[in-house]
Amino acid sequence: MADKVTIAVDAVGGDAGPEVVLAGAARALADDPDLTLVLCGPADVVEPFAASHERAVAQPCTEVIAMGEHPASAVRRKKDSSIVVGCRLVRDGAAQGFFSAGSTGACLAAGTLVMGRIRGVKRPALAQVLPAYAKPTLLLDVGANADCKPEYLLQFAQMGAAYMRELMGVAEPRVGLLNIGEEDEKGSEAAQAANALLREELPGFAGNAEGRDLLSGEFDVIVTDGFTGNVALKTIEGTSKVLFSYVKDALMGSLSGKLGALLVKGDLAALKAKVSPDTYGGSPLLGVKGACVVGHGSSNELAVRNGIAVAATTVRSHVADVIAATVAQGGERA
Amino acid sequence: MADKVTIAVDAVGGDAGPEVVLAGAARALADDPDLTLVLCGPADVVEPFAASHERAVAQPCTEVIAMGEHPASAVRRKKDSSIVVGCRLVRDGAAQGFFSAGSTGACLAAGTLVMGRIRGVKRPALAQVLPAYAKPTLLLDVGANADCKPEYLLQFAQMGAAYMRELMGVAEPRVGLLNIGEEDEKGSEAAQAANALLREELPGFAGNAEGRDLLSGEFDVIVTDGFTGNVALKTIEGTSKVLFSYVKDALMGSLSGKLGALLVKGDLAALKAKVSPDTYGGSPLLGVKGACVVGHGSSNELAVRNGIAVAATTVRSHVADVIAATVAQGGERA
Repeated sequence: MADKVTIAVDAVGGDAGPEVVLAGAARALADDPDLTLVLCGPADVVEPFAASHERAVAQPCTEVIAMGEHPASAVRRKKDSSIVVGCRLVRDGAAQGFFSAGSTGACLAAGTLVMGRIRGVKRPALAQVLPAYAKPTLLLDVGANADCKPEYLLQFAQMGAAYMRELMGVAEPRVGLLNIGEEDEKGSEAAQAANALLREELPGFAGNAEGRDLLSGEFDVIVTDGFTGNVALKTIEGTSKVLFSYVKDALMGSLSGKLGALLVKGDLAALKAKVSPDTYGGSPLLGVKGACVVGHGSSNELAVRNGIAVAATTVRSHVADVIAATVAQGGERA
Repeated sequence: MADKVTIAVDAVGGDAGPEVVLAGAARALADDPDLTLVLCGPADVVEPFAASHERAVAQPCTEVIAMGEHPASAVRRKKDSSIVVGCRLVRDGAAQGFFSAGSTGACLAAGTLVMGRIRGVKRPALAQVLPAYAKPTLLLDVGANADCKPEYLLQFAQMGAAYMRELMGVAEPRVGLLNIGEEDEKGSEAAQAANALLREELPGFAGNAEGRDLLSGEFDVIVTDGFTGNVALKTIEGTSKVLFSYVKDALMGSLSGKLGALLVKGDLAALKAKVSPDTYGGSPLLGVKGACVVGHGSSNELAVRNGIAVAATTVRSHVADVIAATVAQGGERA
């Protein structure tokens, strides 16, 4: 039996509307008998759901943070928004984790400002599990910090390694630095400085990784600043999307292709699901006190279900405690 | 009839060996009756080729710059290497362009140091034509300058637009800045500064592009620093490679898939060729006096043929003159 866990869920986050979030929440509850959910959102959305589902609690909120709003100021202003309320439930111990498919910026701001940073963590980082060949690779930061100092990247490496060890069971994660050449002295000034610090401070640092290593499966964790990481993540998404379009066009362009397409349709659909962001369900914000998982804005029911499951697993594997211990150690060593 | 053009070719550049380069050179000669090639390399490699091919001239060299050597110091030291000799032929007017599939770093250094920068160009940039959906997109810089000031990016935008206009016939290229959000104020400090400068100085600036726009076909030119551009380019290559592996695995995993695979094999192979770097043959170094085109280290015969053709087209479309005029204008305006 798994540990009992309570996750707060932003019922109104995501482009697809609350029905999709609630459907995903219902699946998460059905799949995990030790899970309780606190649904944060307008009373007329969350109360009927809580009334009709076991282990579901309603937390009515009067405000919503929209996708276009300035994240930090919206979080400061809208104290009764679903995102701020969800994070406050975690801060106050009423829940251990939070999931939202709403504004990524607002979730980062609320996670950092409301849940609070783990003592010693300089900057929380948004991490993303990538569908690398043979085994997953964790990329961070994918957008929380556009400008990063080398010491942030060292902590990203420690936090990412803790995540892959505790959640994915990778005994000794291979951590690489995203750079533009294999040799230590390659890259921008920032990348060279980060390489030097990681060589010195990170036991078992595996050296530089390149763009092509993000999906090669050669590394368990790849660290970079939030600008480069966000560009790389969206490049992977865009490349996958365009290649699937090209495959479709190629197959529809010939008679043999059309016949073959009928036969391979199921296999390609399964593959598309495998490499889709929905499969991973969400990006954990590492370095905050509690589990904070941010879903893609376009999350469907499955993605919401998986995002909630990631939040629950993050809580159960005590990643935040491990990060706290690692960072405290790093602080002593430095 | 096209203008007569002479291109110097590094006969020993590339992982596949001189035979592949020479085979590609032979195809380029056969396809373009107005093309003359000067083959730079060891006498026993280039002289037999020149003797057996019309419009081929041998330029024996005694040195070779290997892939691992430090680019700038190798270029300074090895005056009789195929890369330095090829660029010198352009500087001295014996050729108008140069192609190599050898060390990218050495080609960038020799292009910049030996051919020389166009007056007013702050930093030459390596550009790459990407197989975006429906129409190609030019990305630059993909690795010549890891650290960039905003004013470099403005020139990259001007040079990239000139290239797409003159070579690709795009009347009014849509130029975007690679960033991590659509809004002008998004991104790192460097990206924000570049956005502000492009808004002010670049007529028709189309705003920020994101990673997913590299292949969407929404932009004709996307500018970024050489660090981010190199990561993005290698991410596209890596994602394509892994997705094709996944497609293969998916089809081989079921009986219907195996049958279907027989039918779609040809279409998928054609697609693979379409998105392969070999199709574009090489990356032009923009901002130097003359055409300098750098091929992938893994260039095959077709890639060499195409790289030489890109160099010839670059010369015939007078891109360097257009860049010189644009940059001189920009200098006056600034």
